[in-house]
Amino acid sequence: MSTRIFPTAQDAENAFYEALERASLDAMMQVWSEDEDIICVHPTGQRLAGQEQVREGWRQMFAGGSGLRVQVTQKVTVAGMMVAVHSVNENITVPGERRARPPVVATNVYLRTAAGWRMVVHHASPSPGSTTVEQAPVVPPTGPKILH
Amino acid sequence: MSTRIFPTAQDAENAFYEALERASLDAMMQVWSEDEDIICVHPTGQRLAGQEQVREGWRQMFAGGSGLRVQVTQKVTVAGMMVAVHSVNENITVPGERRARPPVVATNVYLRTAAGWRMVVHHASPSPGSTTVEQAPVVPPTGPKILH
Repeated sequence: MSTRIFPTAQDAENAFYEALERASLDAMMQVWSEDEDIICVHPTGQRLAGQEQVREGWRQMFAGGSGLRVQVTQKVTVAGMMVAVHSVNENITVPGERRARPPVVATNVYLRTAAGWRMVVHHASPSPGSTTVEQAPVVPPTGPKILH
Repeated sequence: MSTRIFPTAQDAENAFYEALERASLDAMMQVWSEDEDIICVHPTGQRLAGQEQVREGWRQMFAGGSGLRVQVTQKVTVAGMMVAVHSVNENITVPGERRARPPVVATNVYLRTAAGWRMVVHHASPSPGSTTVEQAPVVPPTGPKILH
């Protein structure tokens, strides 16, 4: 398997969402650091740690096939020399579904390695309520449901 | 309001969880960067962006009073000169509840600012299933429920 080099964290992020849309496990794992200190949290899922768990999580997800379309919006970036963090909303379209899903909130962390920028953390969680992120105002949560 | 200086990201993280346990809004906001590019996602909540939304989110949460106890476990750290990322499980104990809650998975991002290390991203989401994190094996998710 050839190794891809991502010159910037954004290059790695673009490859991440391409791999997600294509449901390509090989392409996905080429985005990730080869270190054991990697973390992946899928929406409503447990924390997956290390190469084996992270790969297995994607393998299971991709077993359902491809066809997702992901539009990333509202990016906030925190970038240093070695570490970059992208906070985004993922607006996901699923084939055959007419209604837009609520966006998924994701925190993506990239590390500058000897082999270019690689993902080390992907933390995704569903956001409540709205049907499309572009129309939905981001408002503080209400009521007593919040419990950290 | 006096400004606290956190010499390390870990100092900022310690202060974050102290403020959470004390339900102290002032102490909490002293942990955060004064920049507008801050993001806070409470479990099952929308993405809160900027000073006003982040503060209001904590204000509402703390309006319910204090008494939570938070034990942080399974920390994975990614650290650069200017940015540090801590991925943790938060094991939360609520007064009056006998059963332990499933852990909350959190990604905490800290930035080295002119005023020391400050939090810029807190992304928390509930993890499914287990009753105590120390006993629960971290296993890959199963079944077709996973949809990114």
